[in-house]
Amino acid sequence: MIIVLRPDATKEQLNHLVAKIKKLGLKPWISKGVERTIVGVIGEEDAIRARPLEVFPGVEKVLSILKPYKLASRDFKKESSVVDIGGGVKVGGKEIVVMAGPCSVENRKLLIDIARKVKKAGATVLRGGAFKPRTSPYAFQGLGEKGLKFLADAKKDTGLRIVTELMDIRDTELVCKYTDIIQIGARNMQNFNLLREVGKTRKPVLLKRGMSNTIKEFLMSAEYILSDGNFNVILCERSLFPFHKVSR
Amino acid sequence: MIIVLRPDATKEQLNHLVAKIKKLGLKPWISKGVERTIVGVIGEEDAIRARPLEVFPGVEKVLSILKPYKLASRDFKKESSVVDIGGGVKVGGKEIVVMAGPCSVENRKLLIDIARKVKKAGATVLRGGAFKPRTSPYAFQGLGEKGLKFLADAKKDTGLRIVTELMDIRDTELVCKYTDIIQIGARNMQNFNLLREVGKTRKPVLLKRGMSNTIKEFLMSAEYILSDGNFNVILCERSLFPFHKVSR
Amino acid sequence: MIIVLRPDATKEQLNHLVAKIKKLGLKPWISKGVERTIVGVIGEEDAIRARPLEVFPGVEKVLSILKPYKLASRDFKKESSVVDIGGGVKVGGKEIVVMAGPCSVENRKLLIDIARKVKKAGATVLRGGAFKPRTSPYAFQGLGEKGLKFLADAKKDTGLRIVTELMDIRDTELVCKYTDIIQIGARNMQNFNLLREVGKTRKPVLLKRGMSNTIKEFLMSAEYILSDGNFNVILCERSLFPFHKVSR
Amino acid sequence: MIIVLRPDATKEQLNHLVAKIKKLGLKPWISKGVERTIVGVIGEEDAIRARPLEVFPGVEKVLSILKPYKLASRDFKKESSVVDIGGGVKVGGKEIVVMAGPCSVENRKLLIDIARKVKKAGATVLRGGAFKPRTSPYAFQGLGEKGLKFLADAKKDTGLRIVTELMDIRDTELVCKYTDIIQIGARNMQNFNLLREVGKTRKPVLLKRGMSNTIKEFLMSAEYILSDGNFNVILCERSLFPFHKVSR
Repeated sequence: MIIVLRPDATKEQLNHLVAKIKKLGLKPWISKGVERTIVGVIGEEDAIRARPLEVFPGVEKVLSILKPYKLASRDFKKESSVVDIGGGVKVGGKEIVVMAGPCSVENRKLLIDIARKVKKAGATVLRGGAFKPRTSPYAFQGLGEKGLKFLADAKKDTGLRIVTELMDIRDTELVCKYTDIIQIGARNMQNFNLLREVGKTRKPVLLKRGMSNTIKEFLMSAEYILSDGNFNVILCERSLFPFHKVSR
Repeated sequence: MIIVLRPDATKEQLNHLVAKIKKLGLKPWISKGVERTIVGVIGEEDAIRARPLEVFPGVEKVLSILKPYKLASRDFKKESSVVDIGGGVKVGGKEIVVMAGPCSVENRKLLIDIARKVKKAGATVLRGGAFKPRTSPYAFQGLGEKGLKFLADAKKDTGLRIVTELMDIRDTELVCKYTDIIQIGARNMQNFNLLREVGKTRKPVLLKRGMSNTIKEFLMSAEYILSDGNFNVILCERSLFPFHKVSR
Repeated sequence: MIIVLRPDATKEQLNHLVAKIKKLGLKPWISKGVERTIVGVIGEEDAIRARPLEVFPGVEKVLSILKPYKLASRDFKKESSVVDIGGGVKVGGKEIVVMAGPCSVENRKLLIDIARKVKKAGATVLRGGAFKPRTSPYAFQGLGEKGLKFLADAKKDTGLRIVTELMDIRDTELVCKYTDIIQIGARNMQNFNLLREVGKTRKPVLLKRGMSNTIKEFLMSAEYILSDGNFNVILCERSLFPFHKVSR
Repeated sequence: MIIVLRPDATKEQLNHLVAKIKKLGLKPWISKGVERTIVGVIGEEDAIRARPLEVFPGVEKVLSILKPYKLASRDFKKESSVVDIGGGVKVGGKEIVVMAGPCSVENRKLLIDIARKVKKAGATVLRGGAFKPRTSPYAFQGLGEKGLKFLADAKKDTGLRIVTELMDIRDTELVCKYTDIIQIGARNMQNFNLLREVGKTRKPVLLKRGMSNTIKEFLMSAEYILSDGNFNVILCERSLFPFHKVSR
């Protein structure tokens, strides 16, 4: 970690900062440049990361040497991740996995019809929502468990794997019972408690990027799932932001 | 509802559409304009709203006559809403209510110190997070119930009302026990199940607008809370989007 | 055009509106629905489009039957557009055209080296900036005409077609002299006078979508170019918004 | 400047980087930490800022010690800027300056009526567009010079100062002749050549923040104007982003 001092930082402010760093069991070193004095911190960056050093008097900014995510970084795991979703389907390997299906599960017959077509077209995973995040409380909210059962029927009929969205922490167990991949929708990318919950399962998780979230925020959300021990995270880039804001 | 047909819509397509509308118990009327044929639908717009008429062959677009939100609209309630949060504090009336306090509750003494200053400065509501939505799983996540208790202590000491964030459906009862206003953070503006849950309480709800959400989406989220019977909704405009994306 | 009245619109307000519509040479028709009265306007929608009818007393909203863009619409031209950029290269046909090259033209030798590789890899158009839109006034701003000449040299050497960005209205003639396609960058998608200027040329234009612009705004910008008579417009979808906001 | 090496950077890569830094006349120092080796650069950061060091083999990231803007920074000028727009009106001092007026100048009489009301209400600057940035090529584009003349008439009548938008580099002289403040609209915040052009004048410039631009980008655009010697820059925060994307 590198702490950059303001040009007008006093000697007392520098000493105060250095004392603080030492108290945390870290080793400071000081470098006086042409325009700024900077203080490097040697040791576990974690110990100091949570401290709001920016608010120390005399401090201009704090620069991280390490990435804020760890498990999601190549530093932690060099090789690319391959997520095994069962039935011989692996995401992240050499083959492209196509997941297809209707927005929401509407009825059994229609779903099975679609599933057969999806399979015939070459997809190996069937998607379909049993719980739907709707902007309107008056819109169809999905069939719930009945929809999950239809997905299971379609799986039995076609051999396709299943991916479906989990919206509510309280449905985690229920959704896990039926699905092969838990989808976390774009609107829930920063629903941190939901991330924690799916992090406790060992189900593959398809994490969609939120509408206006940066790649860093996206990886931090993956980090939530990973840090609870679930390494089966599939990142799903979303379609372009403004298409969803098109006025009618 | 107005349905605009494509310029190349066939007579069969028009008939099919008209039959569908009648089947829903609604009355269609047809108007052939210079460039387009349009079909108006008379009757309860709700009956048809959920139907994806846009996908009907020959249909170009569907225009809503009514707003998608009802309870959140002035049509439903002409006068401005005033939310009574107790202790003589009313939001939405003639007086401006200032809510202030630390980002997160860190310890009892500090919180009470701040609360006294906040009160002295003229605020009537104390804010402070006991549950914190953090982008990093390694950041301080809040004191939880202990933090809520400190807020209650600060309330007793100063007479200030309390507003604090609810992030997890499972904490609804707990948070309601201590707070005067439930805050729904910007990241949860479209966590529809959470909205439903606070809609079932009768606590005032401070709903923050999400980062890239339109005003229509914002009102639809308010509609979720209202439609479950909780009319104590306070809309909270957020600070500007890009400030939060400033790179360091 | 459909004009929706407020539920509390008075008879005078309706009459005032109807008189206004007639004065514009258009034909109004009135439909009283369950919840709203609506006024349809028959005739050239253009005549009324520019009028701010929303501000008329008693008017709640105005709905367009027609799209705000015309030349950019399939209504105007049913078949897909194919833009001939010379040298046998056509964009929008059955073959995918790959355009590749360096961000900015830095020197002659390097550019020609890259151009040869780009050609070998199968691309048919060479891209490279001679004028660069830089967030910092201290960053390299491009080689200007010298860069354009290097592009011409690379074209001569390889037979590749050229695409390069035009940023300044005053450089239009200069850029046209050297390039086969004029690129309008994302930051200039709503630089309407620049659009007008390239609309007056007959050069193919590669129009990039702006960072937070909707598809409607994108098509309206294309309409600017088309409406000045240049039908050689290539729409270029940009990479995802938030990648550019990633903090370091 | 701090250069962070990848954990797997080789000795050759480090040496290559160090040699490069020395060649630029700068002094490198090397610090081997627990998890990363970092290379500090002592000397004028400018010399190295334009070089794309991130693409050097073995480099993970490059951290700036200094801000990318200089003249726009408090480091350059500690005290707050006060822009004198003549007629006794100063922006940035103790008094709040209100600028008001119609979106576009439509006719002389209406403008003068508005100007009088604006003055009576306490404003000291009249705004009104003579050149309008319109998403549609078919919308009213402003009165041009005639509109500027009406603004001058309103100024003479009321004593109000004038602010009006400049959209086209070629109109700079014309607009300067009539206005007291040049407005750069949100859509032109990154029209760098236009910024350069107003930077060459000494007129006060009202720079509006672009729709999805960060505060850093905003200040970089101000830097463009400042770096050409025009220090009369007024930053204008825009209204919230999503309001403009509300669908009708």
